[in-house]
Amino acid sequence: MTGRRLGRGVALVGAGMSKFGAFPGKNTRELFVEAYQEMTASLDKGFDPAAVEAAYIGNFSSELFEGQGHTAPIMTDWVGLTPVPATRVEGACASGSLALRQGILAIASGLYDVVLVGGIEKMTGLTTDGATDALATAADVTYEIPAGFTFPGMYAAIATAYMHEYGMTPETLLQVGIKNHEHGALNPKAQFGQRISAIMEARKASAARKGKPVPTWVTELDFLHDPAANPQIAWPLRLFDCSPVSDGAASVLLVSEDIARHYTDAPLHLIGTGQASDTALHGRSTLTSLPAAKRAGQIAYEMAGVTPADIRAVEVHDCFTIAEIVATEDLDFFKPGEGWKAAEDGLTTRGGARPVNSSGGLKSKGHPVGASGVGQVVEIFHQLRGSAGERQLPGAPNIGMTHNVGGTGQTCVVNIFERR
Amino acid sequence: MTGRRLGRGVALVGAGMSKFGAFPGKNTRELFVEAYQEMTASLDKGFDPAAVEAAYIGNFSSELFEGQGHTAPIMTDWVGLTPVPATRVEGACASGSLALRQGILAIASGLYDVVLVGGIEKMTGLTTDGATDALATAADVTYEIPAGFTFPGMYAAIATAYMHEYGMTPETLLQVGIKNHEHGALNPKAQFGQRISAIMEARKASAARKGKPVPTWVTELDFLHDPAANPQIAWPLRLFDCSPVSDGAASVLLVSEDIARHYTDAPLHLIGTGQASDTALHGRSTLTSLPAAKRAGQIAYEMAGVTPADIRAVEVHDCFTIAEIVATEDLDFFKPGEGWKAAEDGLTTRGGARPVNSSGGLKSKGHPVGASGVGQVVEIFHQLRGSAGERQLPGAPNIGMTHNVGGTGQTCVVNIFERR
Repeated sequence: MTGRRLGRGVALVGAGMSKFGAFPGKNTRELFVEAYQEMTASLDKGFDPAAVEAAYIGNFSSELFEGQGHTAPIMTDWVGLTPVPATRVEGACASGSLALRQGILAIASGLYDVVLVGGIEKMTGLTTDGATDALATAADVTYEIPAGFTFPGMYAAIATAYMHEYGMTPETLLQVGIKNHEHGALNPKAQFGQRISAIMEARKASAARKGKPVPTWVTELDFLHDPAANPQIAWPLRLFDCSPVSDGAASVLLVSEDIARHYTDAPLHLIGTGQASDTALHGRSTLTSLPAAKRAGQIAYEMAGVTPADIRAVEVHDCFTIAEIVATEDLDFFKPGEGWKAAEDGLTTRGGARPVNSSGGLKSKGHPVGASGVGQVVEIFHQLRGSAGERQLPGAPNIGMTHNVGGTGQTCVVNIFERR
Repeated sequence: MTGRRLGRGVALVGAGMSKFGAFPGKNTRELFVEAYQEMTASLDKGFDPAAVEAAYIGNFSSELFEGQGHTAPIMTDWVGLTPVPATRVEGACASGSLALRQGILAIASGLYDVVLVGGIEKMTGLTTDGATDALATAADVTYEIPAGFTFPGMYAAIATAYMHEYGMTPETLLQVGIKNHEHGALNPKAQFGQRISAIMEARKASAARKGKPVPTWVTELDFLHDPAANPQIAWPLRLFDCSPVSDGAASVLLVSEDIARHYTDAPLHLIGTGQASDTALHGRSTLTSLPAAKRAGQIAYEMAGVTPADIRAVEVHDCFTIAEIVATEDLDFFKPGEGWKAAEDGLTTRGGARPVNSSGGLKSKGHPVGASGVGQVVEIFHQLRGSAGERQLPGAPNIGMTHNVGGTGQTCVVNIFERR
């Protein structure tokens, strides 16, 4: 793998997303149209849809969530791109990043100059049990699920192993949730775009309006410690440690580097991409790291020729709070066992030395699983171009990274983009 | 698109498949191991698994068929390839060919030299109703399925339109089934590897053994005309016009052209690849052609620089007998409206001027949907290398084609291989 390069350069020129949330009246094709339209509007030199030569769509399980498989041609048809070749790619919650990666390879192959990438998921049409069952198919249904494992349980196992090995307590996890809600409060696309303090005050006001006893919470930690407000899901993970069930879509446009400036004066260059796979959780030798994420990161760093210190904006896969802490170690931002201290010390906040998940992350922005990886790229697009609005990171970041995990790390993808 | 070429050449060096059929005791991972092992055994200069850099797995709906999503890393893990990046690709019954195409692009991109491609499906674990429902997710569940359409019904609509437009009768369709069973009888991997005459005689013998009235069928047509033996499914399609529900897996190895001879003295070169998408059936202006298949074929021919007359071996997607007739027109082997006459005249038999589906096709070989596209490539591999055994086509074919359809043509993929 050493020194392996793409046959030709790939640029990211446009990006858009639907709001993430629960949209009972919309299906994936409608959400995708919203994402596509925002993407085309982001192309500051205009856009001719006839230029699009192929499309890759990340989608975990529309079969189970809305009874619709074979989703890629439907998405392209709904935005008027029939008959371009449209391919659906699936790697659980990393499906979006896998679609992006196929788009990258398709351009690098020389076959196409202009490729649309999308991610979609519509999860809120099922009951909680139904959604849990659907998500369970991303684990190993021969070895893990019959034993009673669910995804909160698996990440709880990772959290307990991490606490045991490194001395973290569940208190630290709460800080990750607080931080991501702080960030998400600045993101108009976020499903839960409110500070936890705002959620708390709203609950108190609601109780007062209804003439019920008003909770006595003063601080966010009061709220998060209250089992009524923040119940245990799978110890040590509570409700506010878990990303939500969401609907949403995201879309980006990739083009070959040599034509990027036909589309925008501010293209971003894909400088590194890494992907790796792993057994399901039951077959690992470690629980405190996702080996495939570590490997994907190393491959991407090596291809990009950059170091962790060069990454100025990063979206990591915080499906659960513990996952963000582990991710910051797997990506070598912090040494093994020190990620939790960095979170505790506020290093990962927007104003910190190593801001993580400026979008609000999956926790606050939402986690429509097949869309999430592409949604991460949308955030990096805005951070590197300086168009992130209120949540813009300081210092005009020029290099950004996305880290997307499928399952408990059976699929991991890391991409690095640069503004030159 | 005109004249577009891949950044570098791609060669097919190994191929293998499990038997196709109904295997109640086996799941997809076990079937994939069988296909992988046969593939590695086909590499006549040996094989070091450590050389494999990435894998693409075609799989329509393990979620619905066996409750398992996120299948790609499981397949690679079961053949010992963890942590190579493993990506699952889905395009209904064209999933296998989409996986092959991603493998082609991944090598052409320069990122990888050696890529494993697989196709898997385990369909017989569900009831007939369950399998019908699962397959229905490959159509449009907003517009088609609520109207009562099923896949046999959709292809019956294609057949009736074709009959109306071109004067064919259902009698011609029976010839396609007879021919594909003739071919499949020579294929040890086929699910129904028997001539229809053999099936007929076996039924008569069985009736005699059980002391029941012995049917008076003398010819295969007697048998196929008997509603007891060959019931109507969706007029004009009868049971023997429909490919079966199947379990199976297939696997091939792609490498960059410059290292192909490290793996075998007889590499095949990928010279053309085309893919196109379409609306579901309800949105088309024609029912007697699959426009995406026509387009995919044109793209592949143009890239390869060959004409239909150059194709000496071809596997087409005969999910229903009518689909084979339409395919032979979409690929320009016969003019529109003349495919049925060619079938009637025996041109598409092994000994005919234009042999089609020497493997037995999906009808006789079986149709484990995600595996079928890769299974087609396995057949072309053997036909071009002269290793097809009893069913070897005469004249040492040097150029072969696969034609794989998802749904009723929402996804179509055509690939062309050459032995030099």
